[in-house]
Amino acid sequence: MSILRKPTNTDPVIEVCLTPALWYQFDYAEKNVIVIDIIRATSTITAALHHGVKRMIPVETVEEAETYLAKGYLVAGERDGYKIPHFQFGNSPYEFMSEDVKGKEIIHTTTNGTRCVLMSKGAHNIVAGSFLNLESVVEWIKAENRDTILFCAGWKDHYNMEDALYAGSVVRALSDHFQILDDATLSTKMMYRYIRANMLRSVKQAQHFKRLSKLGIEKDIKFCMSNHKYDIIPIYNGEGFVKM
Amino acid sequence: MSILRKPTNTDPVIEVCLTPALWYQFDYAEKNVIVIDIIRATSTITAALHHGVKRMIPVETVEEAETYLAKGYLVAGERDGYKIPHFQFGNSPYEFMSEDVKGKEIIHTTTNGTRCVLMSKGAHNIVAGSFLNLESVVEWIKAENRDTILFCAGWKDHYNMEDALYAGSVVRALSDHFQILDDATLSTKMMYRYIRANMLRSVKQAQHFKRLSKLGIEKDIKFCMSNHKYDIIPIYNGEGFVKM
Repeated sequence: MSILRKPTNTDPVIEVCLTPALWYQFDYAEKNVIVIDIIRATSTITAALHHGVKRMIPVETVEEAETYLAKGYLVAGERDGYKIPHFQFGNSPYEFMSEDVKGKEIIHTTTNGTRCVLMSKGAHNIVAGSFLNLESVVEWIKAENRDTILFCAGWKDHYNMEDALYAGSVVRALSDHFQILDDATLSTKMMYRYIRANMLRSVKQAQHFKRLSKLGIEKDIKFCMSNHKYDIIPIYNGEGFVKM
Repeated sequence: MSILRKPTNTDPVIEVCLTPALWYQFDYAEKNVIVIDIIRATSTITAALHHGVKRMIPVETVEEAETYLAKGYLVAGERDGYKIPHFQFGNSPYEFMSEDVKGKEIIHTTTNGTRCVLMSKGAHNIVAGSFLNLESVVEWIKAENRDTILFCAGWKDHYNMEDALYAGSVVRALSDHFQILDDATLSTKMMYRYIRANMLRSVKQAQHFKRLSKLGIEKDIKFCMSNHKYDIIPIYNGEGFVKM
């Protein structure tokens, strides 16, 4: 299709939820939901499945993850950017690239992203989006041709620059096939359009970057902000994310 | 002061609340609050006071406004962009420029903006911001040198393009004197920076414009989006907005 195509009012709608605090405004039951927690949960889920992890199982609380740990599961988790000390893994994508995790199931709890997955239960499909699999996610949304919500995890119910920029990049890529009917969605598209040439510079001004770079995870951030063309779609099967 | 000045961590903080749905996250008791409802409540308040209206008194509900109407007050109001038929005035800035309203008090109820004023009660000061008095508001905030929240009224608890762009223009003008500590605030500044050359074109893509232009108020919108350099600050004195 030509990029000059304009969506009509029979085309599906694309929407962006800027923070979980606004999720109550969305009617998601019949829609596809893309959960976005660029730094780092959905990037880590994408990288882990790409590198052979069998299933990433999101749980909301540290306590719940601990019950799995007690049963012998591999458990990954962070709070406020810090690895939970008695878990085997934190939330860095680099931790899930080794032979040791191939074919394994991993319990995963994070400050923002995993919570959004559980908030989206009941959606038509729940998919994890990241720059790592941007093209694949865009192509999948297009092929589905269904109303879609891009759900930014943000930071503790606040707006988050890198999640909004990713949402904007997806909206822009879909804007000849999907209707945009609200200003929040339009704003992410406009912002991405202007900032894309200086993405990393803009994200370095963002709070999440400043917060996390103190923890020495700049390497993770650079990885999460780059497009690695991982040709996979992590889809939530009711219990965990698996390769579609 | 040079525009190359960088704020330090002893400078006051500027924050943007993108929609009333996020207001609960703000601690506003000791701060100045600028209420922003560009199309049209805060533009109308600014224009009315500039043209000699003595006081614009915001009330939340149509029913409350009706009790004032019954007592003989002049009453202005809209819901969903439409003038309330039995009130003397709607919410167009042009309605408050005649000799008839000079020195008068007017009860004012609108879908979004007046509600935010009442939500801000308890703030150090509440001021109405609009493009009409942009320079004056910026200079006042600077002179106050106090933590400030730019409160975007939005549309029925949703993000609104023109309110966010105005917030961004204020943040940008203050960014050498005030600290920016969150991504929502940073995003409005970035968006304004890139869009300012094409403000009206961008706003024409926005939902509020599309919604209201159907009502034949394009003339109002153009007025509200332009900088008329009205040198006044509408400040809320506990009952209504008066000239500072």
